[in-house]
Amino acid sequence: MSKTTEEIRQQIRTGEWQKPTTGLAPGYTQVNLVILPKKYAYDFLLFSMRNPKSCPLIEVTDVGSPVPKKTAPTGDLRTDISKYRIYKHGELVEEVTDITPYWQDDFVSFLIGCSFTFEKPLIDNGIPIRYIEEGKNVSMYKTNILCEPAGVFQGPMVVSMRPMKPNDAIRATKITSRFPSVHGAPIHIGDPSMIGIEDINDPDFGDPVTIHEGEIPVFWGCGVTPQAVVMASRPELVITHAPGYMFITDMKEEEHAVI
Amino acid sequence: MSKTTEEIRQQIRTGEWQKPTTGLAPGYTQVNLVILPKKYAYDFLLFSMRNPKSCPLIEVTDVGSPVPKKTAPTGDLRTDISKYRIYKHGELVEEVTDITPYWQDDFVSFLIGCSFTFEKPLIDNGIPIRYIEEGKNVSMYKTNILCEPAGVFQGPMVVSMRPMKPNDAIRATKITSRFPSVHGAPIHIGDPSMIGIEDINDPDFGDPVTIHEGEIPVFWGCGVTPQAVVMASRPELVITHAPGYMFITDMKEEEHAVI
Repeated sequence: MSKTTEEIRQQIRTGEWQKPTTGLAPGYTQVNLVILPKKYAYDFLLFSMRNPKSCPLIEVTDVGSPVPKKTAPTGDLRTDISKYRIYKHGELVEEVTDITPYWQDDFVSFLIGCSFTFEKPLIDNGIPIRYIEEGKNVSMYKTNILCEPAGVFQGPMVVSMRPMKPNDAIRATKITSRFPSVHGAPIHIGDPSMIGIEDINDPDFGDPVTIHEGEIPVFWGCGVTPQAVVMASRPELVITHAPGYMFITDMKEEEHAVI
Repeated sequence: MSKTTEEIRQQIRTGEWQKPTTGLAPGYTQVNLVILPKKYAYDFLLFSMRNPKSCPLIEVTDVGSPVPKKTAPTGDLRTDISKYRIYKHGELVEEVTDITPYWQDDFVSFLIGCSFTFEKPLIDNGIPIRYIEEGKNVSMYKTNILCEPAGVFQGPMVVSMRPMKPNDAIRATKITSRFPSVHGAPIHIGDPSMIGIEDINDPDFGDPVTIHEGEIPVFWGCGVTPQAVVMASRPELVITHAPGYMFITDMKEEEHAVI
């Protein structure tokens, strides 16, 4: 019998699971995490609202609470991700497996939809996902698409990329359009240079994957965007997940489906 | 030739148009307006994010600016609605046609999707809209559905109601599902008492309309919800549109369509 989302979070908490979370808890929503002090929360909430393709908000916690009471009431955002990143003034200063020692009473946590969530419907529709087949992390790139700024936050959109046959790209567009809160439809198909990606084999985050003859790259908005934005905007302190190491919620992916 | 959205806002600004805005600028997005001091803006933004069925955000202005630069860059939120409501400590104290004298440098304006926006696709699909046929304002009701609270804001969801034949209700559900940012699919169909509406002929906002034999009422989340929430939550000062008197943006309704 497959594990519950609570059991999976427990495995991550105890260090039993230390890899990227792709394929974990199929059918459930995985989320990106951004934690920052309350003084930045309005600007970041507005930034997310203005950039829903890259930062679709699933939940925002109450100030000081590490519990996402709506989407994972038994979860703990301080321990239930296996790799966190700590950014100070825009610099990545540390990667840790537990942020309990860093927790502050003024922290607000933003849970942002992750495209891992729509991979089950893609696979169910017979569309292979290369990085899963190759046992890698998804390929992610900074683009030359600028996010709409809000307060102190500005910077480039990050995208995830999955190569597929043109027919599958069309079907994947239809499928993912149903899930706007986990990035929705692709933002670009084809030529990477049109969105400022110089070398498709050298992603800014995650791993490169094989692109077969006759396949085209398909790009979706990515919840790692806030990390690129944090690097560009240099707020005092921000804690995030490490790309690919997501937080697993109790929310079924189908709850996001629009129609 | 039909008027541009800019010309329509001009007509409203000069007082030439003083009625509810239903049917104005077909194909363009109409929005509800909530203006409040910056100190309430984080709580209200979070409230909207947590209650997307009733408060789908279209735009949030920069602090102090009366210009919705994304959706109506030539508009002015101080003058381009023909009837505003001023709430102090939760009480409706005044209705005015121009809020220029009340404007404050710390005001933030929230533009919230309005279901008037999806009436053109309903009519295009042969679904008659009773209150338009009868030359009235849409019927709106407070319900017993509580919004998810955020900070100082809590209160009941307000809904708009359109009676239709069951077959049309099914088709209307499919059509409006495409437009989540202007309330999306209905939140209820049929028996009004199930959502706490005692008398369907006595709406809390707008006008009653005729419900013919064989029709059922269909209820959508409504952007008047913030007004019910303001009455319940009693912030110092909030300015809104009067129900039915919307702000007209330059944004095509189809820009909201999910698929």
